[in-house]
Amino acid sequence: MNYKMMGRFLAQILFLEGLFLLPPLLISLYLGETAAVTGFACTLALIAGLCLLLFPICKGAPSAFHATEGMVCVAMSWIVLSLVGCLPFWVSREIPHFIDAFFEIVSGFTTTGASILSQVEAMSKGLLYWRSFSHWVGGMGVLVFLLAIVPSGGTGFTMHLLRAESPGPSVGKLVPRMRKTAAILYMIYVALTVLNIIFLLFGGMSAFEAVCTAFGTAGTGGFSIRSDSLAGCSPYLQNVTTVFMLLFGINFSCYYLLLIGQFKSVFRDEELRLYLGIVLGSVALIAWNIRGLYAGFGETLRHAAFQVSSIITTTGFATTDFDLWPSFSKTILLCLMVVGACAGSTGGGIKVARLLLLLKSTRRNISQMLHPRKVLLVRNNDQVVDEKVLANTNAYLAAYVIILFISFMVVSLDGFSTGTNFSAILCCFNNIGPGLEAVGPTCNFSGFSVLSKLVLIFDMLLGRLEIFPLLVLFSPQTWRGR
Amino acid sequence: MNYKMMGRFLAQILFLEGLFLLPPLLISLYLGETAAVTGFACTLALIAGLCLLLFPICKGAPSAFHATEGMVCVAMSWIVLSLVGCLPFWVSREIPHFIDAFFEIVSGFTTTGASILSQVEAMSKGLLYWRSFSHWVGGMGVLVFLLAIVPSGGTGFTMHLLRAESPGPSVGKLVPRMRKTAAILYMIYVALTVLNIIFLLFGGMSAFEAVCTAFGTAGTGGFSIRSDSLAGCSPYLQNVTTVFMLLFGINFSCYYLLLIGQFKSVFRDEELRLYLGIVLGSVALIAWNIRGLYAGFGETLRHAAFQVSSIITTTGFATTDFDLWPSFSKTILLCLMVVGACAGSTGGGIKVARLLLLLKSTRRNISQMLHPRKVLLVRNNDQVVDEKVLANTNAYLAAYVIILFISFMVVSLDGFSTGTNFSAILCCFNNIGPGLEAVGPTCNFSGFSVLSKLVLIFDMLLGRLEIFPLLVLFSPQTWRGR
Repeated sequence: MNYKMMGRFLAQILFLEGLFLLPPLLISLYLGETAAVTGFACTLALIAGLCLLLFPICKGAPSAFHATEGMVCVAMSWIVLSLVGCLPFWVSREIPHFIDAFFEIVSGFTTTGASILSQVEAMSKGLLYWRSFSHWVGGMGVLVFLLAIVPSGGTGFTMHLLRAESPGPSVGKLVPRMRKTAAILYMIYVALTVLNIIFLLFGGMSAFEAVCTAFGTAGTGGFSIRSDSLAGCSPYLQNVTTVFMLLFGINFSCYYLLLIGQFKSVFRDEELRLYLGIVLGSVALIAWNIRGLYAGFGETLRHAAFQVSSIITTTGFATTDFDLWPSFSKTILLCLMVVGACAGSTGGGIKVARLLLLLKSTRRNISQMLHPRKVLLVRNNDQVVDEKVLANTNAYLAAYVIILFISFMVVSLDGFSTGTNFSAILCCFNNIGPGLEAVGPTCNFSGFSVLSKLVLIFDMLLGRLEIFPLLVLFSPQTWRGR
Repeated sequence: MNYKMMGRFLAQILFLEGLFLLPPLLISLYLGETAAVTGFACTLALIAGLCLLLFPICKGAPSAFHATEGMVCVAMSWIVLSLVGCLPFWVSREIPHFIDAFFEIVSGFTTTGASILSQVEAMSKGLLYWRSFSHWVGGMGVLVFLLAIVPSGGTGFTMHLLRAESPGPSVGKLVPRMRKTAAILYMIYVALTVLNIIFLLFGGMSAFEAVCTAFGTAGTGGFSIRSDSLAGCSPYLQNVTTVFMLLFGINFSCYYLLLIGQFKSVFRDEELRLYLGIVLGSVALIAWNIRGLYAGFGETLRHAAFQVSSIITTTGFATTDFDLWPSFSKTILLCLMVVGACAGSTGGGIKVARLLLLLKSTRRNISQMLHPRKVLLVRNNDQVVDEKVLANTNAYLAAYVIILFISFMVVSLDGFSTGTNFSAILCCFNNIGPGLEAVGPTCNFSGFSVLSKLVLIFDMLLGRLEIFPLLVLFSPQTWRGR
């Protein structure tokens, strides 16, 4: 294990987090929010101390770097980032319990958007900004950000890290150099976020709220600065958010392909088509199922479209209490939670690309039974899919199901209903946010025990990092005999 | 497609069903149950007609037989068996709606044990016997029975059929000849059933009830001749049933190995050890969780052990309303529903053997990430598992999850709670019987719509035949260009 390299990397990540903490500190200073200022200042002091300690120790690290180290590095940085990032909430006493503060920031970085706050409006502006910003940077990835701006270490370093942090069954390089790929991704991300802010400002939203809402939308996170999420917003603002949530759920390489003029391959992309198909189908079914609940067809469609976009992209904003909808609509939403957004987007879940591979390999399996001697290949966008990717996708599903059931069992110790427990796990594991019943859109996660919160925190991290990096971090094999 | 061979096979199966219908007919004649006698007589007349039609047409069938035809054959026979087998209920008007009668017999043959009856005691004895007997013959398999007594057709015929009907990731031959294997399996099955009856009689149960209860236990079905299942029975009878349910959930090849004196390989069998470990662990956790609900430690342990055995073996008998238990216990039961019994037993679910393979291949996958260049093999009972079996297990899980979610969505149209819908699907798909909330142990499935009942019927068949035979039957590829 290349400890020095990992230490230097952690120090870089912490330094970056320190930079990210400056804007909310300035906001709190400007607004005179004393408690929040103390929180940010203490955290920054700690970061400075850690950096001063780590940088000299880890000087002159060898540059060789393995896949295992990449995964351990990613998993560890996310945990350290969250442990440090939750301090402003805790030190300022705006969230009195450490476990709640930790839950809130993990929910932020993993773009889950599940909250333990019952009164969001009571929080100081600086902390609200930090809470929403954690979505934005967590969505595209903190390490990707670092890679985009810092000259990368030795061979394979960038690739291993990107592979471990980026969502989806396989990571595509947009351009031969990974660092440039990371930079392009972030440029598209920033451009779309700015566009989103402009559209929101145009609808009469205050600058602060527009920025926070855009952060939540871009990262497909779902923290809002209001307890009722977007229910109080105008239809225009709701529709803008619907569209942008969907946009941020699309594989970012599609935008790159559009930029370089390859419209045809975007149009033909099977994942994109399935994603849009699922969205349209679900909106139609739900709009039909909830007809009569709202004033007119327009309003019904608006709520259906908003909630479908919010759930499939795993954002978690709400314009209405969908826990009051009929079971059929709720079940569609539960299924969408599992599906999630496209690979290479900021969304969570199993990902549409994986669903596509699972469907195709199941179909292949049936064909194989009919023609045992034929060699049958799975194709995606007219290219043969590597059997290793298929095996990994199946292993991912197996690990997903096993973790789901173990978490389900532990969380049920708190004695909530089956619907509450199951949707709470699905929501955290798929980085969505609100679930059904006791964790529905009008409720929050504060009622769970410390043990359940720890399980949910672990599930959020597992969901965001797609299981394996964390399993590798906690696997005894990783640490044995090195 | 070898239509003639399949036709002859169907005729043989129907003839066998006719024979199975004679004992209940005699019971109804003896007790003077006119309606039931009419029902049985009409069904037997139909069977006679079909056999007279099919046998001459399908004479001189070629003996070549492919894997596809084996699967189609198995899937079709189960559907035909059920369509004909439900007639006595319907013709006698004891179950007035055809779809309900069909649901009841599919639930019987697939050893699910989910019922649409609210008053079981109101049914005539002949029909109650037929209902319980369907569990017994469905548990080990109707086709296996046929193969055990009838000289088999051409090459590969027996193997293909056995493979399609027997549960588990891979079918083991006990002896080189498949027909003898089938006969040995049935002999063990009969012996254990008789032993179970003797133990029940010893506890003071009436002969009729002992036979019916033993049928339900042996097939891990769960139909009881009382509405309150086994709640009214003495602790002795409940404990006997607990033990026999567990025994019928064990791979039958273990009993064969015991008979030929290979104690060591039984003792070392990884599936058996995991199965017993899960049972013991679950009983301990549930007994701890429900402490205080019952009079003393003995009673608590008895109820915990009974319900755990009933659910993991997918039998579905109940001694108490476990829907009133705390969520943690209910969640453990939900998880056990999915796990199911051992491969090669009469139980349903994913099977402990598959769980073992999924766990091992997930662990292998993590190791593979750590050592990308090493060739890592999965071993079971010290033997290397074929990669094809692993791929099939993963494909099985993928198909399982996809079907689960589609069914969940359709059934939720009826507007029941999430817990009801989810547990109803799990119970039918895993061939268990009672679920939670509106389909709990004290309730029944009559409240669902026709569409939901059809979905649940299809799920029961999918669960019993382990998905692929039915998918092959309904796949357009099977019928294209032949």
